Amino acid sequence: MSNALNNIETQYFKFDSLVLESGKELKDVTIAYETYGKLNEEKNNAVLIVHAFSGDAHAAGFHKNASKPGWWDNMIGPGKAFDTDKYFIICSNILGGCSGSTGPSSVNASAGKPYALDFPFITITDMVAAQKKLIDYLGIKKLLSIAGGSMGGMQVLQWAVSYPEALRSAIPIATTMKHSPQQIAFNEVARQSIMADIKWNNGNYYETGQSPDSGLAIARMIGHITYMSDKSMEEKFSRNLKEQAYSFSFASDFEVEGYLRYRGDSFVKRFDANSYLYITKAMDYFDVSGKKFVGEAKNKDIKFLVISFASDWLYPSYQSENIVRQLKLKGYNTTYIEIKSTYGHDAFLLEVEDETKLVKHFLDKTYKEAKNDR
Amino acid sequence: MSNALNNIETQYFKFDSLVLESGKELKDVTIAYETYGKLNEEKNNAVLIVHAFSGDAHAAGFHKNASKPGWWDNMIGPGKAFDTDKYFIICSNILGGCSGSTGPSSVNASAGKPYALDFPFITITDMVAAQKKLIDYLGIKKLLSIAGGSMGGMQVLQWAVSYPEALRSAIPIATTMKHSPQQIAFNEVARQSIMADIKWNNGNYYETGQSPDSGLAIARMIGHITYMSDKSMEEKFSRNLKEQAYSFSFASDFEVEGYLRYRGDSFVKRFDANSYLYITKAMDYFDVSGKKFVGEAKNKDIKFLVISFASDWLYPSYQSENIVRQLKLKGYNTTYIEIKSTYGHDAFLLEVEDETKLVKHFLDKTYKEAKNDR
Repeated sequence: MSNALNNIETQYFKFDSLVLESGKELKDVTIAYETYGKLNEEKNNAVLIVHAFSGDAHAAGFHKNASKPGWWDNMIGPGKAFDTDKYFIICSNILGGCSGSTGPSSVNASAGKPYALDFPFITITDMVAAQKKLIDYLGIKKLLSIAGGSMGGMQVLQWAVSYPEALRSAIPIATTMKHSPQQIAFNEVARQSIMADIKWNNGNYYETGQSPDSGLAIARMIGHITYMSDKSMEEKFSRNLKEQAYSFSFASDFEVEGYLRYRGDSFVKRFDANSYLYITKAMDYFDVSGKKFVGEAKNKDIKFLVISFASDWLYPSYQSENIVRQLKLKGYNTTYIEIKSTYGHDAFLLEVEDETKLVKHFLDKTYKEAKNDR
Repeated sequence: MSNALNNIETQYFKFDSLVLESGKELKDVTIAYETYGKLNEEKNNAVLIVHAFSGDAHAAGFHKNASKPGWWDNMIGPGKAFDTDKYFIICSNILGGCSGSTGPSSVNASAGKPYALDFPFITITDMVAAQKKLIDYLGIKKLLSIAGGSMGGMQVLQWAVSYPEALRSAIPIATTMKHSPQQIAFNEVARQSIMADIKWNNGNYYETGQSPDSGLAIARMIGHITYMSDKSMEEKFSRNLKEQAYSFSFASDFEVEGYLRYRGDSFVKRFDANSYLYITKAMDYFDVSGKKFVGEAKNKDIKFLVISFASDWLYPSYQSENIVRQLKLKGYNTTYIEIKSTYGHDAFLLEVEDETKLVKHFLDKTYKEAKNDR
């Protein structure tokens, strides 16, 4: 069984309606998802992977004829951290996204055109509610674990708040119980950048053939600065020039400028500007701190593995430490590791060796307990 | 003499031509400047204040009928750190700026209209060259000191490289010998934001009546995030809402969002978008590290007071420590202090008490030596 995951196909789960945290109702919902490995008879080996801001359902393996694997392929597969020889792995694209799940770029059946800003506001709670419906549909009563980094980590925490009885363990990575004003500020500037683009057209650009690419690219460039660390940028780019000398023009002189422009330009080809607005707002609204957080631990309650990265200044370690403090105060079995890394926030996708050791061991232990529970 | 500085007037120094580092010649140059206190007979009590990115010549006191004082008034005046009862203080608006000195929004006499992108590229070296002409014009052979924070600090360092014989001491604050790729990246995103604004019109907006306010406001919003610290934002805004509850809209929900929008909007009323482009590029090009930095110290060479702030992540302390290392290696008399502050980069304008003690003592000592030198 230890081969690469080939011919992976995205599947689509549909349901009629979801009443959202805002009170509005979203009808005809589709959730794109993929699965890897096999659900066992006892249905106790299922792990849900929840993706970060711009991720999608394609977490691992290769689509037919594709040359690039899914976004967390280095962690998911036969013999890997999320071992598909043992576990049944599920990953779904978030509600509000633009990679197969219903979002602002989806067609609003009642209007016969894309929602745009008629799409109702969604929250992390709503994303998780849609995932719960998918898990129910797959016949899984209790997940062996749920794991995700960044906004994925927020979904992990929200699952523990919304559906504690459906989780055996949880792995929030490089995340927070609530966005700080600095995190909100970066998102707000990104949103302003999109909305300032004249082609955004108050969200109605799907039929004009002109999307707010400039604004979206700038939003993404800001993002990329925050995903790296001062040190990793120094290591990757230093002050290296693209040409021999300064251009004395507003062209890209430095490699780091070229990198950001390239990243911005490639992002707009795969991401929807309105989804950017809705999802960042969902992150900013997210707050499970204090009393809102999970209740007191009971016997056999959720076990937590909390991971942060030393150079991550977007989701700094102190935010993970706050999660750990809350969990320990409430009596949860919690393991916390700060991985030494210079990669900044991107580390959660790059520090595979350390993460693999931690996750593999944690899942193995949890799975043993699950089997004894039968 | 210990009264506030009232009825301050901006003055204008004009000269015919400056050959720039790029090789181009800039003609009919004006430098806006102000002075406070009196130049003594020996002309050895002059201190040049060099401003940060968006500053101007109005560093201290009140213009006639004005209610707000200059940008560093808490540090400059009778009895203050830069004591106008003792010292003759000069501050000039940088070349390329938009507050009285020649810049891209100035009229190009040979074309009869504003330069816009016909303005030649300027560097920190060029800014300093223009300041040297002003100092010469004022009849000052040797400055008692030169002081400035952020980009002001770069000018301080460039003075030490370009005109070491004209300095007795130097006070670079919260600055660097060269921009890191992260610092370049933030500037580049700001430039892209301005240039992506359709009203920027390739720099030709002076005659359209439509300036790139959206793009410039976003650039400034990014700036403001980098000027504060995670902690100072938490202290100032936390997750405070403007209204009672989430709006479930793209309006400003959080106080921090309102603050950024306000700051962005007020900035565009006083700053020129093309100046933003030229000046940020001058910062990114600046690099006096390594061999380019000041030669070996000789007897009675420049004394340095280097100041950084613990929570400044835009110009982190390690950059000041690199300056200090270079200076000490070359034998310069160098004092270095990292001030404990939660204000982030803004600290250089806010930590007045600590800065006053350090600067006052340093200037007094330098002045005593200057008087013994006669």
